Amino acid sequence: MRKFQIGVMGSTTDLKYSRKVEKQAELLGELISKKGGILFFGAEKDSDSLSTAACRGAKKNGGLTVGITYEKGKNIVEKQADVIIPCGLIRGGRELVLILACDAVISISGGSGTLTELAIAYQADIPMIALSGFRGWSDKLAGTYFDGRKRRKVLKATTAKQAVELAFKEAKKYRKKYEGD
Amino acid sequence: MRKFQIGVMGSTTDLKYSRKVEKQAELLGELISKKGGILFFGAEKDSDSLSTAACRGAKKNGGLTVGITYEKGKNIVEKQADVIIPCGLIRGGRELVLILACDAVISISGGSGTLTELAIAYQADIPMIALSGFRGWSDKLAGTYFDGRKRRKVLKATTAKQAVELAFKEAKKYRKKYEGD
Amino acid sequence: MRKFQIGVMGSTTDLKYSRKVEKQAELLGELISKKGGILFFGAEKDSDSLSTAACRGAKKNGGLTVGITYEKGKNIVEKQADVIIPCGLIRGGRELVLILACDAVISISGGSGTLTELAIAYQADIPMIALSGFRGWSDKLAGTYFDGRKRRKVLKATTAKQAVELAFKEAKKYRKKYEGD
Amino acid sequence: MRKFQIGVMGSTTDLKYSRKVEKQAELLGELISKKGGILFFGAEKDSDSLSTAACRGAKKNGGLTVGITYEKGKNIVEKQADVIIPCGLIRGGRELVLILACDAVISISGGSGTLTELAIAYQADIPMIALSGFRGWSDKLAGTYFDGRKRRKVLKATTAKQAVELAFKEAKKYRKKYEGD
Repeated sequence: MRKFQIGVMGSTTDLKYSRKVEKQAELLGELISKKGGILFFGAEKDSDSLSTAACRGAKKNGGLTVGITYEKGKNIVEKQADVIIPCGLIRGGRELVLILACDAVISISGGSGTLTELAIAYQADIPMIALSGFRGWSDKLAGTYFDGRKRRKVLKATTAKQAVELAFKEAKKYRKKYEGD
Repeated sequence: MRKFQIGVMGSTTDLKYSRKVEKQAELLGELISKKGGILFFGAEKDSDSLSTAACRGAKKNGGLTVGITYEKGKNIVEKQADVIIPCGLIRGGRELVLILACDAVISISGGSGTLTELAIAYQADIPMIALSGFRGWSDKLAGTYFDGRKRRKVLKATTAKQAVELAFKEAKKYRKKYEGD
Repeated sequence: MRKFQIGVMGSTTDLKYSRKVEKQAELLGELISKKGGILFFGAEKDSDSLSTAACRGAKKNGGLTVGITYEKGKNIVEKQADVIIPCGLIRGGRELVLILACDAVISISGGSGTLTELAIAYQADIPMIALSGFRGWSDKLAGTYFDGRKRRKVLKATTAKQAVELAFKEAKKYRKKYEGD
Repeated sequence: MRKFQIGVMGSTTDLKYSRKVEKQAELLGELISKKGGILFFGAEKDSDSLSTAACRGAKKNGGLTVGITYEKGKNIVEKQADVIIPCGLIRGGRELVLILACDAVISISGGSGTLTELAIAYQADIPMIALSGFRGWSDKLAGTYFDGRKRRKVLKATTAKQAVELAFKEAKKYRKKYEGD
C-alpha cells in the first residue's frame, strides 16, 4: 500500500516568521517522515518558507520529500528535495497541484498562499489540520468551517505531535472514503 | 482602448442566499455593463450563483459577458453568456483563470470558492472590492489585508453603485500600473 | 444563441513566415468576423504571430476578438484585442485553454505550438481545419487522423474561404453534439 | 544530488498495442530503476497503458515511481505507484505537468496523447528519446525536429537499453544547462 502523502503549508520568509516557528515546521516534517509519510511541500525558487523547512525536517529522518514548484524549471532553493515537480502554473495555481497531491495537509502560521491552499483543500474535501499558536491564517481558521456547507472542519492542533497524529488519522479516513482501502 | 474587464464573485445556490442578495448581484452586473465594462463571471454547469446573476444583470443593458467554466465543454447553465471559456482546470483551479482575466473584482457574500478567488486576486495584485452587508467572506474580508505583506486592501463598499465605481477606479489604476496606459 | 467561437492557430514570427502567409491568416480572421464568429487567438507578449494576424483581420470588420495569453498580465503585443485572458499556465499549457474555448479551429502553417494545439483539439474532440499550401504542421496533418482511434480527421481546406466555411459547418455540428442545440 | 526523473510515454490500451510492445515498455521502466532513476508515468483511472507498464517494470527493481494523473482523486489503476499526483488539469493538460517533471522522456509507439507530450517537451526544451520499431508517433518523430526552430531533436533509439542510456546522458546535460550542476 502506498505511503501517506502529507503536506505542510505555511508562510514564506517575506512574512518574517521567527526561528521558533521555523523549528516547529521542521519538527512537523521530522515527525511525518518518522511515521513513514511522504512529505509534500511548496518548493520556492527565490526564498525559504515554513513549507520548505518541513522538507529539511523530513530529511533528518531520511524521509521521502516531494516539492511542487511553479512554472517550469527545477532550480529550487531547497537542495534536499528528492522529487521536484514544476506544475506549469503560476503562483496562485501551483497551490492546486500541491493540495490535490496530499492525503492530509498541516498548516502553520501562513499568509495569502497558505489561505489559498486551505480553501482549495476545503473545496476538494482534503483533511486540514492547523497547528495553532503561531498567528497567521492557521490561527484564524483552526476549529472553523470555511462556509455554511460545513463540508470539513479545519482541525485544531496545539502541538506538532498532535498535528501529525491527526493528519495520519484523517488521511486514513480520506483514503478509505475515496479509494476504498 | 480595450474595455475594462470586471468580475463579480459570490456564493453558489447550495449556500442558500436570499432573493435580496441575488438582486444586488444582478444590479452589480447591470451597473458594470452600463459603465461599458465587460462582465466576467464563473459559469457553472449544474447550478445558479451570484456570479451568474451578475451576468443576467449585465445582459439587461446588452453588455458583453464572459463566463469562465471548469474542465471542458460549454454546456453551462446560463444561456445569456456571450463568450464561454472552459479552462481545463477543475473547480479550485478555474478560479485562477477567472481572476487573472479581471482588471478588478467585486465580491458579494461568498463561501470557499469566493475566498479562493479573493486570495488569488491578492496574490496576483488584482483590485478587490467587497460589497458588504450580505455575510459570507465578503463581509469578513471587507477593509482588511490578507496578510502582513499588506499588498492590497480588500476595499469595502456599502452599495452596489459604490462597489462598481470603486471597481472601475481601481481597474484604471491597475491597468496603468501593469500596462502603462 | 451565442456566436460561434472560432480559433486561428499558426506560427509565431521566429518561424519566419512570409507576408503572403500572414495575409492569409488575416483573411481568415476577416472572414470569420464577417460570418459573425468570435475570433479566438493566442496572444503573445513578445512577438507577432499568424494567430495574432487573424485578430487584426477580424478587427477590419469590427468583429469581436478574444486573446488567450500565458501566465499573468494583459500586456500583450496586439492592441486591438477586445478581451484578454491570461490563463495562469505557461506556454505549452496555454494551448489547452485556447483550444477548449473554440467550437472549431483553423490552422495555417505552424510549428510545435500549433501541433500541441491540434493534438489537444483532437484529444478534446474539437473540429480542426488545416488550410494547406503553407507548409508546417498544417500541411503535414491535413486530411489525416492523429492516431488509430480515428476520433476526428483534420479537415483539409485549400482556400481561406473554404476553411472558414468548413469551420462554421463543423462548429455547428460540434455544438449540436455537445450542447444539444 | 537528486536522482534523475525519467518519464516513459506511450499508447493507452484503446490503441490495441501488442504484448511485445508492452514488454518493451516494462523493460524501459526496469532499466530506468536499475540505473537509479525515478520513473515518471501518466497514471490512468480507467485503463492500462505503456506508460503504466513502465511503472510495473520499475517496481521489479524496487525503483521509485511517480504517477501524474488528471483532475482530482488518487484512484488510479496501477496499485504499485509510490507517489500519486492529481494535477487538477483534464487530459490534454495533465501532459504538461508530467513532461515538466521529467529530466528526459522516452516514448514508445503512441497516439495523440504521446504526441502532445512530445510537442510540449520540445516547447520546454526537455530531452526526448523515441524507441523506434513499434509504430505510432515515436516512429514518425524519431530523428526529427518539431519545427524550423531546430531547438532539440527527438533522438532515435533502436533498443530499450540504448533508449535508457541516451535518456540518462541527455538528462545529465539538461540538468547542467538549467540547474548548473
